[in-house]
Amino acid sequence: MTQVTDDPETEIRRLVDEWVEALRSRNVDQRTAAYAPNVLLFDVVDPLQHVGLQALKSRLGAWFSNFGGPIECDVRDLHVTADGDVAFCHYLCGFSGALKESGQLAMWVRFTTCFAKIDGRWTVTHEHSSVPFNVETGKASIELAP
Amino acid sequence: MTQVTDDPETEIRRLVDEWVEALRSRNVDQRTAAYAPNVLLFDVVDPLQHVGLQALKSRLGAWFSNFGGPIECDVRDLHVTADGDVAFCHYLCGFSGALKESGQLAMWVRFTTCFAKIDGRWTVTHEHSSVPFNVETGKASIELAP
Repeated sequence: MTQVTDDPETEIRRLVDEWVEALRSRNVDQRTAAYAPNVLLFDVVDPLQHVGLQALKSRLGAWFSNFGGPIECDVRDLHVTADGDVAFCHYLCGFSGALKESGQLAMWVRFTTCFAKIDGRWTVTHEHSSVPFNVETGKASIELAP
Repeated sequence: MTQVTDDPETEIRRLVDEWVEALRSRNVDQRTAAYAPNVLLFDVVDPLQHVGLQALKSRLGAWFSNFGGPIECDVRDLHVTADGDVAFCHYLCGFSGALKESGQLAMWVRFTTCFAKIDGRWTVTHEHSSVPFNVETGKASIELAP
């Protein structure tokens, strides 16, 4: 059992560490344990939005199944802002991992994660993850790195 | 002078209304008046991130110059969460407008906007706007609508 502190920044950084760990072991339940049942998601790929924890779990399960081993995340520029019962954080995440079919995934994704403190726990009520696109080609810029 | 209320949700909704108005008149200063000097932006198009109000103003000025008339925004599903001196909101924005060159822009963008109350005013310290991409084609899904 990890100790829960009273400091919002410490607690949210601990959650991000836990998510990195959960991706390494491709554990959907661990990755989504801090998400609200009615979480609203703007995801990297279609559609425009997902609503609800079940949608997130399905999406993650499908994504994890593409990998033959751990998904590594290089978290950069994590910044946390919190006051009272509301917080947000943003960071860049460099995903890498061996795909089952063949080849390697390697891409950087921008994350903005928004929290409310519910029953004493920081809970994700909204998350926005994306890559930008190249206006000349119309293609998602999955090759950009910080 | 618009009256500033003490209710965070009312005040943030008023800011979003003001941004819609600023886009209609393509007024960069009005659109960015509530943004912090060191705002961190994850934008719809490249690069991965922008830092600072000046970068935002340059980007907006360049974008506005593509249009021959007003840029209309259809704001949907605006949701505001605030406590103490921290707040965030998320919404979908349907942009439309006549392009100078020819044709019409029409696309839906996801927005997550994060605020800190600085010197008594709700100030944007972070904004994330994006469209998802289609995993089959690798193209940005600029044709999706809610």
